[in-house]
Amino acid sequence: MPPTFDMSLIQRGARLRRSPYFDATLAAGCRSYTVYNHMFLPTRYDDLEAEYEKLLTGVTVWDVSVERQVEITGPDAFAFTNMLTPRDLAKCAVGQGKYVLITADDGGIVNDPVLLRLGENHFWLALADSDVLLWARGVALNSGLDVNICEPDVSPMQVQGPKSKEVVRRLFGDEVLALRYYWFLETELDGIPVVVTRTGWSGEVGYEIYLRDGSRGVELWDRVMDAGRDLGITPTGPSDIRRVEAGILNYGIDMTLDTNPYEVGLGWQVDQGQEADFIGREALARIAAEGPGRLLAGVEIAGAPLDLNMTRWPVRGGGTAGGNGEAIGFVTSAVYSPRLGRNIGYAMVPAGLAGMGTRLSVSTPKGEREATVVPRPFVDPEKEIPKS
Amino acid sequence: MPPTFDMSLIQRGARLRRSPYFDATLAAGCRSYTVYNHMFLPTRYDDLEAEYEKLLTGVTVWDVSVERQVEITGPDAFAFTNMLTPRDLAKCAVGQGKYVLITADDGGIVNDPVLLRLGENHFWLALADSDVLLWARGVALNSGLDVNICEPDVSPMQVQGPKSKEVVRRLFGDEVLALRYYWFLETELDGIPVVVTRTGWSGEVGYEIYLRDGSRGVELWDRVMDAGRDLGITPTGPSDIRRVEAGILNYGIDMTLDTNPYEVGLGWQVDQGQEADFIGREALARIAAEGPGRLLAGVEIAGAPLDLNMTRWPVRGGGTAGGNGEAIGFVTSAVYSPRLGRNIGYAMVPAGLAGMGTRLSVSTPKGEREATVVPRPFVDPEKEIPKS
Repeated sequence: MPPTFDMSLIQRGARLRRSPYFDATLAAGCRSYTVYNHMFLPTRYDDLEAEYEKLLTGVTVWDVSVERQVEITGPDAFAFTNMLTPRDLAKCAVGQGKYVLITADDGGIVNDPVLLRLGENHFWLALADSDVLLWARGVALNSGLDVNICEPDVSPMQVQGPKSKEVVRRLFGDEVLALRYYWFLETELDGIPVVVTRTGWSGEVGYEIYLRDGSRGVELWDRVMDAGRDLGITPTGPSDIRRVEAGILNYGIDMTLDTNPYEVGLGWQVDQGQEADFIGREALARIAAEGPGRLLAGVEIAGAPLDLNMTRWPVRGGGTAGGNGEAIGFVTSAVYSPRLGRNIGYAMVPAGLAGMGTRLSVSTPKGEREATVVPRPFVDPEKEIPKS
Repeated sequence: MPPTFDMSLIQRGARLRRSPYFDATLAAGCRSYTVYNHMFLPTRYDDLEAEYEKLLTGVTVWDVSVERQVEITGPDAFAFTNMLTPRDLAKCAVGQGKYVLITADDGGIVNDPVLLRLGENHFWLALADSDVLLWARGVALNSGLDVNICEPDVSPMQVQGPKSKEVVRRLFGDEVLALRYYWFLETELDGIPVVVTRTGWSGEVGYEIYLRDGSRGVELWDRVMDAGRDLGITPTGPSDIRRVEAGILNYGIDMTLDTNPYEVGLGWQVDQGQEADFIGREALARIAAEGPGRLLAGVEIAGAPLDLNMTRWPVRGGGTAGGNGEAIGFVTSAVYSPRLGRNIGYAMVPAGLAGMGTRLSVSTPKGEREATVVPRPFVDPEKEIPKS
């Protein structure tokens, strides 16, 4: 059993960058931060289940400045950006966004950003936790394409939950309510330049506000809080309970550079029908033809509620009776869902053990537990994120 | 004044990777971790000044697994690796290491690893905190060179301090004492495969042991601790006090992708005399010819001892009398040196304000302080890291 790891053990990490909203998150009583893209990410102000309830019933605000942008501009920005991802960006209009994968030449996943197309040749990638700025600049070196690649002064916050619609309406007017899923609006709030997108990492109705002037972070934060005060708006961390319920993956644990889109259920991202070439095309065609050797399965884990875990618990085949065999995979994320009353999560297992109903055994800090392969998402599939 | 930032605020960051020595560091009473290369880095077990004293007088052990390796092999590994850095690797023998910079096409610093040459076409880069694996794989894509680039199962620990020599002699025999600075030995300890290097981040005598089998981390840790028990061997974090005294820079704060070698006093790394091309050559030649516009100056900051800080305190010209002007730069690292009895650090300032004796003013959480430009390193320059 791994030793208990106390939250107080992690230092301030003074070397690390702070968000434009950082002082506001401290003042709001943030109790815990993690590090993401070399920067502090507020993870909670309250009990995780209390924050989850706020997200399901009200409106929550998350400082996700750590979603750093890579900005790609220049005459060949479209061709270059289209080469970075297996999705066909010819299908992405100006004013539209897409959830995309960035893939390496072997099909491995470099990152899974939200892409925004701000102009014919103007793109932002709102990153998960890896240095895509270095990847993109490395790729550009010998590409023969004329592009500029930088990290602009852009810092997103998420406004998520059923009452988020009313908050953004009050801030930005009715125009924002017309936004279709993954589309965005360039606007301002008393001169604070922002981009508002109909996106989020929650499976609930939600928006992101991309601040374009880092000197005005606390000002924007206060405006958003004021607009939702009578609705009970609450600052929280991103909810791992809700995102696992929704079948959403967390880059760095559920998928990494060592996994490919087909293994993690994101094969629909790979558009082999497009004319343009993209990095990893050949490898991904081969993987698709052969079928992936392992799959990230949805699992239910039996027994009493488990604490949120993303530390790769070993998995064995054959239910708990098989618990003495060799590990054949690992759980990537696991969490207790209060409304389902069950432990849910993902396990990377051999493809032959990913069939619905397959019995597995998981080594948790609370002992060996039986697990069963189930479909994901775990709740309200009809409500979940459309593939756009 | 920025709000106080309590150390207990940072969460366990379950998504983050753990070192092969992680359980040993917990058992040894590690009190604080930071995050580096997506992984936990133990930063202290005791008071920072107590750990500094142990380093100056005894022998300390640091878990620096976070120095992840990028391994480059294949028929063109030499040509490719030589292209990544402005140093001329034709001058690096097999069995030898070098402190190198990885530079981008604009001359910006991507990373400052220790490079080890394990074979004619076999290199490791022991990284500071940025995803050079992505940079190198991106650069390789259209390079036309035949290389394999991966992150191998290699996890360094540092053994630093005047008594480190005796510890490594006991573990690896007299052969290791013959190592010249930056050379290394491939060996094993009761079947645990390691590479031992005469390197370190302290300015003291020291070694690094690169573990080549992550399943044996705690075993190696225990062997090292046992070998030094009667010498008072102590697990500590890397000492920011000692490394600033030695004039050593910390990637991510003292230098970043936005700084070039000439700005931070590492222009000696750029070997324009070599025949082979390297990334950033043209930009660095231009910067050298024009002279850098700003410089990272050594500074002494007046007044009572300051806590370790790496959060970019604003700097103004003209001493405290000029403290009302516009910020013209920032302090990158500052710390109190017990043996000097002074606050020391680095400030990035316009080149015209980097001359010895120049008076500056620094905005610290303890108020406006006068600072003076002084030479670095701050102690025993004759003892400090040779340029190899």
